[in-house]
Amino acid sequence: MRKVTIGILGAGRIGKLHTSHIIKHLPQFQIKTIADPSLDEAWFQKTGLSHGINNPDVVFNDNDIEAVLICSPAPFHVEQIIEAAHTGKHIFCEKPISLEIGPTIEAIKAVKRAKVKMQVGFNRRFDPNFSKIKKLIDDKAIGKPHLLRITSRDPKIPPIDFLKLSGGMFGDMTIHDFDMARFLMQSDIDEIYASANVLINPVFNEYDDIDTAIINLKFKNGCLGVIDNSRQAVYGYDQRIEVFGSKGAVQAENNKPTNTIVSTENGVLSDKPLYYFLERYESSFVAELNEFYECIVSGKEPCVSGRDGLYSTLVSIAAEQSRRENRPIKLNYDACQI
Amino acid sequence: MRKVTIGILGAGRIGKLHTSHIIKHLPQFQIKTIADPSLDEAWFQKTGLSHGINNPDVVFNDNDIEAVLICSPAPFHVEQIIEAAHTGKHIFCEKPISLEIGPTIEAIKAVKRAKVKMQVGFNRRFDPNFSKIKKLIDDKAIGKPHLLRITSRDPKIPPIDFLKLSGGMFGDMTIHDFDMARFLMQSDIDEIYASANVLINPVFNEYDDIDTAIINLKFKNGCLGVIDNSRQAVYGYDQRIEVFGSKGAVQAENNKPTNTIVSTENGVLSDKPLYYFLERYESSFVAELNEFYECIVSGKEPCVSGRDGLYSTLVSIAAEQSRRENRPIKLNYDACQI
Amino acid sequence: MRKVTIGILGAGRIGKLHTSHIIKHLPQFQIKTIADPSLDEAWFQKTGLSHGINNPDVVFNDNDIEAVLICSPAPFHVEQIIEAAHTGKHIFCEKPISLEIGPTIEAIKAVKRAKVKMQVGFNRRFDPNFSKIKKLIDDKAIGKPHLLRITSRDPKIPPIDFLKLSGGMFGDMTIHDFDMARFLMQSDIDEIYASANVLINPVFNEYDDIDTAIINLKFKNGCLGVIDNSRQAVYGYDQRIEVFGSKGAVQAENNKPTNTIVSTENGVLSDKPLYYFLERYESSFVAELNEFYECIVSGKEPCVSGRDGLYSTLVSIAAEQSRRENRPIKLNYDACQI
Amino acid sequence: MRKVTIGILGAGRIGKLHTSHIIKHLPQFQIKTIADPSLDEAWFQKTGLSHGINNPDVVFNDNDIEAVLICSPAPFHVEQIIEAAHTGKHIFCEKPISLEIGPTIEAIKAVKRAKVKMQVGFNRRFDPNFSKIKKLIDDKAIGKPHLLRITSRDPKIPPIDFLKLSGGMFGDMTIHDFDMARFLMQSDIDEIYASANVLINPVFNEYDDIDTAIINLKFKNGCLGVIDNSRQAVYGYDQRIEVFGSKGAVQAENNKPTNTIVSTENGVLSDKPLYYFLERYESSFVAELNEFYECIVSGKEPCVSGRDGLYSTLVSIAAEQSRRENRPIKLNYDACQI
Repeated sequence: MRKVTIGILGAGRIGKLHTSHIIKHLPQFQIKTIADPSLDEAWFQKTGLSHGINNPDVVFNDNDIEAVLICSPAPFHVEQIIEAAHTGKHIFCEKPISLEIGPTIEAIKAVKRAKVKMQVGFNRRFDPNFSKIKKLIDDKAIGKPHLLRITSRDPKIPPIDFLKLSGGMFGDMTIHDFDMARFLMQSDIDEIYASANVLINPVFNEYDDIDTAIINLKFKNGCLGVIDNSRQAVYGYDQRIEVFGSKGAVQAENNKPTNTIVSTENGVLSDKPLYYFLERYESSFVAELNEFYECIVSGKEPCVSGRDGLYSTLVSIAAEQSRRENRPIKLNYDACQI
Repeated sequence: MRKVTIGILGAGRIGKLHTSHIIKHLPQFQIKTIADPSLDEAWFQKTGLSHGINNPDVVFNDNDIEAVLICSPAPFHVEQIIEAAHTGKHIFCEKPISLEIGPTIEAIKAVKRAKVKMQVGFNRRFDPNFSKIKKLIDDKAIGKPHLLRITSRDPKIPPIDFLKLSGGMFGDMTIHDFDMARFLMQSDIDEIYASANVLINPVFNEYDDIDTAIINLKFKNGCLGVIDNSRQAVYGYDQRIEVFGSKGAVQAENNKPTNTIVSTENGVLSDKPLYYFLERYESSFVAELNEFYECIVSGKEPCVSGRDGLYSTLVSIAAEQSRRENRPIKLNYDACQI
Repeated sequence: MRKVTIGILGAGRIGKLHTSHIIKHLPQFQIKTIADPSLDEAWFQKTGLSHGINNPDVVFNDNDIEAVLICSPAPFHVEQIIEAAHTGKHIFCEKPISLEIGPTIEAIKAVKRAKVKMQVGFNRRFDPNFSKIKKLIDDKAIGKPHLLRITSRDPKIPPIDFLKLSGGMFGDMTIHDFDMARFLMQSDIDEIYASANVLINPVFNEYDDIDTAIINLKFKNGCLGVIDNSRQAVYGYDQRIEVFGSKGAVQAENNKPTNTIVSTENGVLSDKPLYYFLERYESSFVAELNEFYECIVSGKEPCVSGRDGLYSTLVSIAAEQSRRENRPIKLNYDACQI
Repeated sequence: MRKVTIGILGAGRIGKLHTSHIIKHLPQFQIKTIADPSLDEAWFQKTGLSHGINNPDVVFNDNDIEAVLICSPAPFHVEQIIEAAHTGKHIFCEKPISLEIGPTIEAIKAVKRAKVKMQVGFNRRFDPNFSKIKKLIDDKAIGKPHLLRITSRDPKIPPIDFLKLSGGMFGDMTIHDFDMARFLMQSDIDEIYASANVLINPVFNEYDDIDTAIINLKFKNGCLGVIDNSRQAVYGYDQRIEVFGSKGAVQAENNKPTNTIVSTENGVLSDKPLYYFLERYESSFVAELNEFYECIVSGKEPCVSGRDGLYSTLVSIAAEQSRRENRPIKLNYDACQI
């Protein structure tokens, strides 16, 4: 097994997550350096790694490092992608590439010119439930798809500090669902209508953001879809999908910590869904990096491409416009030539 | 137990259904006369009833008859309501009262003037699953409601003859879901956006109708809702509802003929949903007539009122306008003064 | 539809139940007379029936009465069966025919001589879940059966007065499971081993009875089975069955009042099983009388025969002997020639 | 984190399994040497380890090695335990310690004298479902336990070569269930009655073995239990447990690869159980070695002790005697003084 030496840019929540998964489950990667301007030293000590630095340039300038994981805040992604491409490193970039179309295209072009691989972190495509839905659709188990229904609800509202910079619910949270919609329906979104409100906590009003939404999708192939989002499902992380077609329907229920059921005078009680994305998507986080590794060593193209990142950004911008103007928005793919 | 003598106007599918339920399960009603311009004589013989006629006037002019069940095609409802009111009979009217606002209001006013009771046939309010959802919401089990999700899919497309006169999917089929939405959320619909398509059978295009839809709802209390409809779910009648709120969510799964589960090399197989409305809503059809009886003998007002019929018609007209104009439509309650 | 005029002997819990089902759901029967030595007059008034008497001989001597439902306490069954047979009436007899073999045989012989029909009240054979298990086995859906598992737990201990006369848990409660075992496995029980204890309430010790048991069955065809019983499942009536075979397994889960699911911070809660036999087996009680009617009018033999009653009694006696002597007991069918 | 250097004795199916789990998931262990008289060289190469030998003495004589995992065939366990104890190594031993009582006691005594730790490989105690049942019982969630029901069915019959040496179904397969019964009920088994048969494949007759069984248990605390076993459940590994008590019941359903559900004209299909023990018990295999590590570094006693191994052997011997003599067997703990 060839080892791929990597650097990790950004060690916040998601950077730490990837680091931990690599150490525990992905021996094919060798983490050489972790760069974070305000590195959490206590955490870094526990990793047992030796190079923890503040300046990402050390990573770019290190010829041993073959690939980078960009886990920094979204505003830094484009610049770091371009720099990584310039220095010939393969790129795994957390979503979104950018919250804007122009810079996203710029980043993708830089990657293309440099002929490095870039994979975008839509890990949910690797979730066993959703992969199976995809496979069943591909196998025509439900005939021709007609309707898509995604329920995607977080267990709790994010910290205020995070909210301020998140880019809004559609760009931060629903973007995963937009990618999933495109992935499962095998068709691009043609038009979108987003209805939304602040129902959980008035704090979202302060940031001109929303916490609850229902979003209609029309796909180019004529299918219809709907996403419902909430920032706070008190019973845990609610991640369910259903695709309905001419010959049947397939749905994915939530995963639970155990399959135990307790029957008492009060009713029949089963476990709540796994608490949050760390638990629910652990295997898909690991699987997406396995895929990234395979692309590096085999030369094949990542199945979650820059284009996928670009289109999801396009959709989330349209969603935001739709809810502000309260009208369906047609997606403009002309602006997305890459 | 006081018996209430009734006449039934219209003995098509739904008139036969009510007749059968009354004979089998509702001894408090005495069916004196069934009027249908083209009465199915073979069926009528089997009921064991003695008065089967073609002219509804016989019913209106019969002083023994205290109440009528209006089960005729929708275009006759208003005229028959007005006539029944004039002759002092209590009225159970199948939905919709009318597909238009003006006549609906006229019918409601006639009922009001005559001081008779009128109940509209939104039987699903009496379904044990949905009643329990309503009760749980009322009991604050899920806190303040935020999101409503209704899945309502028929098992097969209706006969072409029926389609021509149905008034379109929203007025014929989704109208039940509009009423359910108002019932559960305890709030009127403020705005609606309907996306729809013909995905099952091109025949719907011929009648300028659709067979698949996703409909966004905004309620006056700020909640959001979505209905998804299909005219043909090959696995059976799919009737599920979920309400999500600040303290949790409640969902109603489909009812099945049995709770058996077969495990073989091919997987773990359970029953399909009950086939169609006859099976799924049998108990709610019986319960709504029990309620109608109680209103007659006790003098209380029906819990499914003329206003409920009117508002659902208003919503279905707006849904049709929304899908044609592809924009959200604000509901105009000013036009609905009664 | 030919009406069959019947008399009901015994109007305790089960007699009232059948009466109510006949009035509400079985118009093909005409109840002429109900005989009970201590007739509950208040209840009888509400039935709207006209002949309520104390002496069963009035029923036997009434030539209008074509069939009787024997719902009296078990010690009276044999005598009433013989008398009914002598007077040429068809017989529906609640289980058990008798708690002893000799009298059971005597009753069956009297029925045979009189050439009337006799059906025994093992209503659970008509439960939709268990009927479906039977059908799946017959259709070879699970191949050749190997193992049977019956869970049969009551929701609460019976009243003390009832306990004294019940004949013990095996004869009163488990007898239904013994019949179900024979019905599903299509094979007679060859040997039985019963382990039991008093774990719920010491009062069972006073009556030399038990409240909890696990009973091993060996069938003549080589299959193995197990029944677990409890007199008190606080979460409701627990009635589940599983049959495992060479090509798979089929199981029947409990029926519940609704299919609603509530998710909150405390977990995911669904309904408890239907409370008790009135609710769970309502449709099977109605179906067994439909079957009885069909046998009377068509002349066919009841599918739950006197032999079925006899063999279940034989098994329950052996179960009692097994737990007292703490050893497996071989069933002696030689003593059961009829 | 202190690393514990270990040797592995036996690299058949289970030895390979532990090796793989340690390499992937248990960095706190350092495997120095694997000893197997007929080492699978191809497999060993892939592990990346350096010391693969045929003679276990090399392990015993290596002072660097602090602990051994005994994964050899059962007949070698006692001898290897004694040797490991003599050389001062902590011991993780696969079940059973021995199929006989005397040698088992001898092994336990050697461990005691040497003051090393010994943990027996009843990994299922660490399964999240069953751990949760245990916790719920400990927390009195179901009150006082009354009944235990274990379903334990393998997906396919073992290879003939394995069968010959397996020691019979009770000693090889059911022994896990006997340990689970003791673990959950917190009480020793007082009496056992085993009924069994050859229903899957006549080959079991040749080895005087059985393939299907139902086993009754009486616990010292008065509770009753039942285990049902099959060597071949065609739908996959069936591992379910239910404990019923005075205040309710808790059950563990099977784990499945995904939570997807497909609804078509043929029914509603969900996944089969995880195929076999590798899949189902992966996390519990890892957790039991975590526990073993903790015992070594902290000095605490393993929660699965030599006594647990001894008592399960005692029960499986009694089960075998019971089925051969067709009578309940009282367990003789006098013979088990350690």
